[in-house]
Parts: sequence; structure tokens; C-alpha cells
Amino acid sequence: MRVLFALLLVFKVSLLYGQDSIIEQSFIISSHYLDEDREYWVHIPKSYFDESYVPVAYPVVYLLDARAQFQVFTGIMNAMSSGANGNYRIPETIVVGILNTDRMRDLTPTRGDVEELGAEFATSGGGAAFLNFLEHELIPEIESRYRVLGHRTLVGHSLGGLLVVQALIEKPELFDGLMIIDPSLWWEEGQYLELIESEYATAPQTDLAVYIVTPQYSNSNGQITTTARLHELLVAKQFENLRIELQRIPDESHAAVPLLAFYQGLQFLYGDMEIDFMSMLDQGPSYVSALYDKLSNNLGEVYLPPERLLEAIGQNLLGLPPEMREISTRFFEYATQVYPGSALAFINLAESYRDMERKEEAIQALGKAIELDSDNEEIRVKLEQLKLSLD
Amino acid sequence: MRVLFALLLVFKVSLLYGQDSIIEQSFIISSHYLDEDREYWVHIPKSYFDESYVPVAYPVVYLLDARAQFQVFTGIMNAMSSGANGNYRIPETIVVGILNTDRMRDLTPTRGDVEELGAEFATSGGGAAFLNFLEHELIPEIESRYRVLGHRTLVGHSLGGLLVVQALIEKPELFDGLMIIDPSLWWEEGQYLELIESEYATAPQTDLAVYIVTPQYSNSNGQITTTARLHELLVAKQFENLRIELQRIPDESHAAVPLLAFYQGLQFLYGDMEIDFMSMLDQGPSYVSALYDKLSNNLGEVYLPPERLLEAIGQNLLGLPPEMREISTRFFEYATQVYPGSALAFINLAESYRDMERKEEAIQALGKAIELDSDNEEIRVKLEQLKLSLD
Repeated sequence: MRVLFALLLVFKVSLLYGQDSIIEQSFIISSHYLDEDREYWVHIPKSYFDESYVPVAYPVVYLLDARAQFQVFTGIMNAMSSGANGNYRIPETIVVGILNTDRMRDLTPTRGDVEELGAEFATSGGGAAFLNFLEHELIPEIESRYRVLGHRTLVGHSLGGLLVVQALIEKPELFDGLMIIDPSLWWEEGQYLELIESEYATAPQTDLAVYIVTPQYSNSNGQITTTARLHELLVAKQFENLRIELQRIPDESHAAVPLLAFYQGLQFLYGDMEIDFMSMLDQGPSYVSALYDKLSNNLGEVYLPPERLLEAIGQNLLGLPPEMREISTRFFEYATQVYPGSALAFINLAESYRDMERKEEAIQALGKAIELDSDNEEIRVKLEQLKLSLD
Repeated sequence: MRVLFALLLVFKVSLLYGQDSIIEQSFIISSHYLDEDREYWVHIPKSYFDESYVPVAYPVVYLLDARAQFQVFTGIMNAMSSGANGNYRIPETIVVGILNTDRMRDLTPTRGDVEELGAEFATSGGGAAFLNFLEHELIPEIESRYRVLGHRTLVGHSLGGLLVVQALIEKPELFDGLMIIDPSLWWEEGQYLELIESEYATAPQTDLAVYIVTPQYSNSNGQITTTARLHELLVAKQFENLRIELQRIPDESHAAVPLLAFYQGLQFLYGDMEIDFMSMLDQGPSYVSALYDKLSNNLGEVYLPPERLLEAIGQNLLGLPPEMREISTRFFEYATQVYPGSALAFINLAESYRDMERKEEAIQALGKAIELDSDNEEIRVKLEQLKLSLD
């Protein structure tokens, strides 16, 4: 079957706030599987277009119910990752938010009983087509347009959570992370869920992390019971590559629970890269290296410490008393090892050597920088200044 | 002293996402007190420009360190209040984010010891001028431009938290809510803080709510100790109008703690308007009315249940079985009592009466709607349809 997808509309909105920019793009994709045009929004991390650093690839989150959840999800993701407020706790992530056209159709696995559920469920049961849309149309489009890692996460709340459960059963290899927030597992009176026992039979080839969230305030529709059952069914699999957490959030309603779920779930799915300052001082670059080895292990692919993080650490450590400042230079050295193609990393290192009065090494690092980016006028100016200060 | 302030630059950015829009504005104000131009950002709630509803006034939050905190704060505020995802837990709020020019100058109460603190504190001690800028320049500009309630909150983190403490001591009546997040009370080795004992002498005339947040992971700079001392000093005042909470957040770093603080702090400062569905079914409009009476009491001024909330409740309750559906009509009736000038409220009520086959009352409500908004073409069309369906 030939997959038709066309990019109908592209526009880019940049909120230019001084040096900052929030980059969000809106697209329409023509879907064969859904037989309609679909709008989706993309949030690009600030660093994506920053030419000061070596370009890197980003993991991707696919977020359902974007109209309700996109702004708060991307706000939280940015606050945890962009470094603007000192946080580098999770990888910066490309977020793809999918807007609804017929929510009851796309997010339900089977045709529901209209008598019982009401007319808005007349089209229900389109989950399989929607998952085909994701797998064969949207994901390939995203992955061909952006610099992405292979790591994909699907995030859904309520009926969206039900769709994520369907993804687990029907496309267990499509995603590496699943966030299932207070899912509508009352569907078919909890029977759909039981398919996990029979249908989700094979251990995942690559790592899969599943974060399940349930509020603890009420059990309307038996949702707390069925969500606990989901967790139980997955734990019973004893799949080695399957990492599962059931998070109970007390005192939060069904509608309010996504906010805390996003915050805690991103930490679980990626792993929390919180840097302990004293350990970093004590162990130097090897501490940061070990932290990102662990993250790479969680992601199932190499994720290097961000260049801007290493730069920020190096600059931060310049604030230490002179006798301790040598550790700063070690981070600038480490940055050139991690990013041997970065002219900026070598310039930072050269400046650091200069401050430590290690002139020979400063000149050597300068030479490397100019070799890497001989056309960059800004670097040339920096180099001239540095050379002058070395005379 | 003549206060000079001029609006130098106004532009408006709307991210138009289908029916949704996020409205953010950036301004520059020329400050006499600070002797420089200052940039600030304003987030306007989505409902502000929605002409379907009766225009209302909004409380205002003044947020420090906007470049780092604005996106995540407004994302959380919106998710808790806009109704887009079913949450109406706090009032929709106008957020004014102030960008830094010289952070160490503006957010510190006294001149610090440069020998000890480093050269970046050479200009420190400008907090009083910054508070004058807020009181005499920025706040009047905001309050003359937008539909605002009198309720103002100041939110600061780290050095920003120190500035909020200074506001408490020097301008105790300027704000109604203060959010003090892991404040830099190591300033002057904790001695500045002690001014609360001597200087903060008079009980506030109107209610003041103070939300203090401290992480529990480390006590670097003795900040946890001094933050607890701040709480102790305020509690000791025994001021009747002073509502205080010290929130300890475990396992969060200094940089990460604002995110949870914003979420929980907004609930404390405003009060949590979470609607319990069963209580609402049981008690009807009087339940919602009591909830908003409590909110009004917290705010110190009248805050009516949002019109769009009452509409959403009424429509939501239409999903009940027919024999219980009368409660929906009661909410539409209540909406017309709360908003007697809203044509939309009377149209909703008329449609509800029609569905309940209360024709006489439907026609009467229609008449009222057309009386209120006779020029609105959209309403005329609705009216015609309704009239036809009544024939």
C-alpha cells in the first residue's frame, strides 16, 4: 500500500524575546490512514538552531490532545532541560503535539456501545488506524525533517492513555517510552486491558520504559482499579527490557493530574540528570561522563553531555577561589574531547589556559580552533584578542 | 518628584493555533527610578479578548527573572485556570514578567561585600529603587492598561526571593500575595532577615498571603535554616490578616524547585477551586457559589464564578440521564443571575428551557437575550433557529 503524505502547510512562529526564542511550528499532514488532513505542532528546543555549538540530534515526544496539553508540557520540558534557569535534568526534546479531529474515534481501540456511552462514541474504534497514521505517516515525516535520535515517547492522558495502552499491545516496538496518565481503562469494562496477557507476548527487543500515573482521590469508572491492574499485568511479564513505574498521585483530580505526571514522568523515562555540585567538584569530568553514560543506557543510544552544559560548568567553576580553579580548565578540556569538532570548545579552552598562564597550550588550542572554523569572522576577532593578550 | 514613564514599544504576538491563541505582549518602560529602559512581558489569559462573555477583571502576578521563569510559569498558570483541559482551579491571571538588566543590583537590599562575593555584586543594594520602580511606574502602567482586580502577587526565586522579602519589609501593603522560593537569605549572613522583627511592625490592613518554599536536599549557604527563620519570624507576629505557609519540597535542587513551587503556591495564594463533581450534583449552584465566595474572601474582593465555567458545567450536565438533567437548567439559570448582562447566558438558558419543553420560559429568555445584544448577527441567527424549533 502506497503511503501518501504531503506537507500542505508550513509556517514557523518565533517569539523573539531578546536573545531568547521559543520556536514552534505548525504543520498539516494529509493522512491516507485517517483519510483526512491533520494538524500538528512541533516544539523545537532553543539550542536546535544555535550555530555556536556542534549540531546534535534530539529525542522526540509525541503528545496527544495537544490543544489542552501542548503549552504546559513544553513549558515543563523546557524548564527541565534548556538550561535557561540552570536545569539540565533531562535531554532537550522535540515535542510533536497532535490535534484532535474526532477524539472518540482515534483514541479508542474498539467500537463502543453507543446506547450506553452516548452519540459522541458513534465513530469509536479507530485506534488501530490512528496508530498506523503515527507509524507510517507522522513519525517518518518528523524523522526525515529534523535531526532526531531514535528514541520516541508517546504521551497520553485519559482516552489518550487508552491509546497508549493500545500502542503497547499492537505496536510494542514503535516507542521507547510510554506515558500513560489516568487512562480510560474502563473501556469495555476493563476487558480490553486483559489483551495484554495474551497479545503482549514477546519481550521487547530494545528497552521500553512505561510510566503509569493514577490519581488517588476517587475511583470513578473503576479507573484506579484498572490502572493498578495494568501495572500488575506488565510486572507479571517479567520482561528484562521492560522498566515500569506506577506513580500514585494523591489529591489530584483526573483533569489536573497531567501536570505533575509530565514533570515526574519525564524524569522516570529519561532518568534524572540532576548534577550534584559537590560530587562534580570531587570527581571532575568523570562524574558528568558517568551521568551521561547512564542516560545513554536509558535511551539505548549515545547521548553526549550537551556542549552548552560543559561550557556552563566550566564558566561556573571560574567562580571558585584561584587555588581550586584548575578544575574549570579540566571541564574545558573535557568539552574538546567530547566535541573535537567544536571551534568554540577550543576557544573556551584557550581562554582558560590563558587565565591559568599556560601560554603554549593556549596557542595550541587557538590553532585548533582556527583550523576547525577558519571562515568564522567572530572567531577571528576572538583569536586576535586572545593573541594580543598573550603577547 | 515627577514620575516619567513612557511606553516606548508595544508589540503583540499571537500564536494562532486554530481556535486557540496564546497572547503575549512585550513592552519597554522607561524608568525614572532605575534610570534606564526596562523590558517586560505580559501574558494575557485567553478569555481576556473573548467577546462571547461579559468582560471581567483579572488578578495580576508580577514575576521576577522572566527570561528563565516566564514560559513555565504561564504554562502552569494556564493549565490550572484556562479550562482548556477542564481545570478551573485558580483564577485566570495576567502575568507580568520582568527581565533583568543588572540582577545583582535590583534584587539585593544592601551593598554587599565585593571582596567576599565577587565583582558581579559591585552594584548590589538597588532593591529599594527596584521596589519604587514596581510601585510607582510598572504597576500603575499595568493597572491603567488592563482590566485588573486589585489583587497583586509578587513571585521571586533565589535573589528574586530576597527581593520579595524586602518588599514585605519595606512595602508591606503593596502586594496581596507573596511567593518566596528558596530565597537568598544568606545575604548579610542572615542578618537582613532579622529586620522583619523590628521593621515589619504593623499588621496588614488587608489580607496578605505569604507562601515560602524551601527545598530539603542541602543547606548550602544555610538557606534552609534562614528560610525556616523567616517563617518563624512571621508566625511570631500573630497578625490576624497574615496567612503563611512554609512548604518543604524534598528531593528538589535550588534550580528545579520553582516548578513545583509555582504549582502549589498558586493553589495556596488563591485557594484551590477544584470542583468536586458529586458535591456539585448534590448541592447544585449553591456549591459553586460557596466555592467562589471563599475565593473572593481570599482575594479580598468579589470574584464571580467565570461565565465560561458555568456554561461548561451546564453543558457537561446535559450528559446526565434525562431524569437528572434538570440540574443543568439550574446552572444556566444561575449563570443569568451571576451575569444578568450576558446575552449568551440567556441564550444558553433558552436552549436549555427548550430542551426541557418549557416553551414559555424559553421565549422569555430569548427576549431578554435580544434585548441585551440586539445588534449581534450571530445571536440573531441563533434566535431564529430557536424560534423555529419552538414552533
